[in-house]
Amino acid sequence: MKGNRTREQIIDQAIRMASVLGLEGLTIGNLARTLGMSKSGLFAHFNSKENLQKAVVEQTAQRWISFVFEPAMKNGRGLPRVRALFEGWLEWESAEFLPGGCLIMSSAFEFDDRPGEIHDMLVDLQRRLYQNFERAVVQARDEGHLRGNLNEKTFVFTWVGLFLAFIHRSRMLEYEDAVHMLREGFDQLVERNR
Amino acid sequence: MKGNRTREQIIDQAIRMASVLGLEGLTIGNLARTLGMSKSGLFAHFNSKENLQKAVVEQTAQRWISFVFEPAMKNGRGLPRVRALFEGWLEWESAEFLPGGCLIMSSAFEFDDRPGEIHDMLVDLQRRLYQNFERAVVQARDEGHLRGNLNEKTFVFTWVGLFLAFIHRSRMLEYEDAVHMLREGFDQLVERNR
Repeated sequence: MKGNRTREQIIDQAIRMASVLGLEGLTIGNLARTLGMSKSGLFAHFNSKENLQKAVVEQTAQRWISFVFEPAMKNGRGLPRVRALFEGWLEWESAEFLPGGCLIMSSAFEFDDRPGEIHDMLVDLQRRLYQNFERAVVQARDEGHLRGNLNEKTFVFTWVGLFLAFIHRSRMLEYEDAVHMLREGFDQLVERNR
Repeated sequence: MKGNRTREQIIDQAIRMASVLGLEGLTIGNLARTLGMSKSGLFAHFNSKENLQKAVVEQTAQRWISFVFEPAMKNGRGLPRVRALFEGWLEWESAEFLPGGCLIMSSAFEFDDRPGEIHDMLVDLQRRLYQNFERAVVQARDEGHLRGNLNEKTFVFTWVGLFLAFIHRSRMLEYEDAVHMLREGFDQLVERNR
């Protein structure tokens, strides 16, 4: 069976590795070793490290959509949907298939000074995250769930910041109160904008 | 003169490189090329990549103290000191000697899954940042500048989050409104805790 793994199985393992080591830490060599495949066999699937990274980013983005975004859209417009996005993102950060957390968010800090196709894909995905969240916040304002003069950009900026602080405090500093801080910070953000 | 640079000049250049490439992207080889030194000459100074990384982290922490922390301490206890820490950190993020931004903050996302001495140094520095900020916030509460039932940990968690979102939005997404968002977010944080 050696070498006979499907593309899907390979990318699944690549996502796990990139979650822990970062996108730059993922190589065809270390992925082949982890899978028990030959390096040349794996090379035949992707041709380059960059193609492997691209496949990982694309597949992670697809999972985000089905894991966080689509379930949240099933909630009513307004605050229920905003809260569902918050809860979905929080579950995503501890998803079984992302043992080191979301590789798209952590790669933001890895790739900010590395121009290229991967950088541009990551930027595009994160801009879309902002846009989707801002749309949900605008709807919450239009539904009367949040105050009429709310600036949706500042709201989402603070929301993203709370998540980054959560990732930083839980993964790097290993403080167990990180999820409590995140919930308290988000509740305060919603309360003062009602 | 080749190879005859002082340790101080070498570390200065190493900090610049780590700021752009990340601590893991900094190697004795690429630093030697940038300085026009021989790799063996540079190796004689540090003996290993890890020693070079340690020197960079230590020296960056020293600069943080004299650039941000000590000037802020000259301000009166309470909100003036909290605001001085905010402004100092913001200046720090665009300091001439950190062309790619603060390497300690961005390394947090690089090293969270890489155990070792560098990881532990970074964690220690960032825990101290939290502690120093929390102390300044507690003083502002004691001086009556912030509300008496304020939780200083949640306050500083949100403050750090705003900075992480600022770094993300300005460096990665290249949105020019990032500094405006940061100031607005911080002003709202202070206002609702007065």
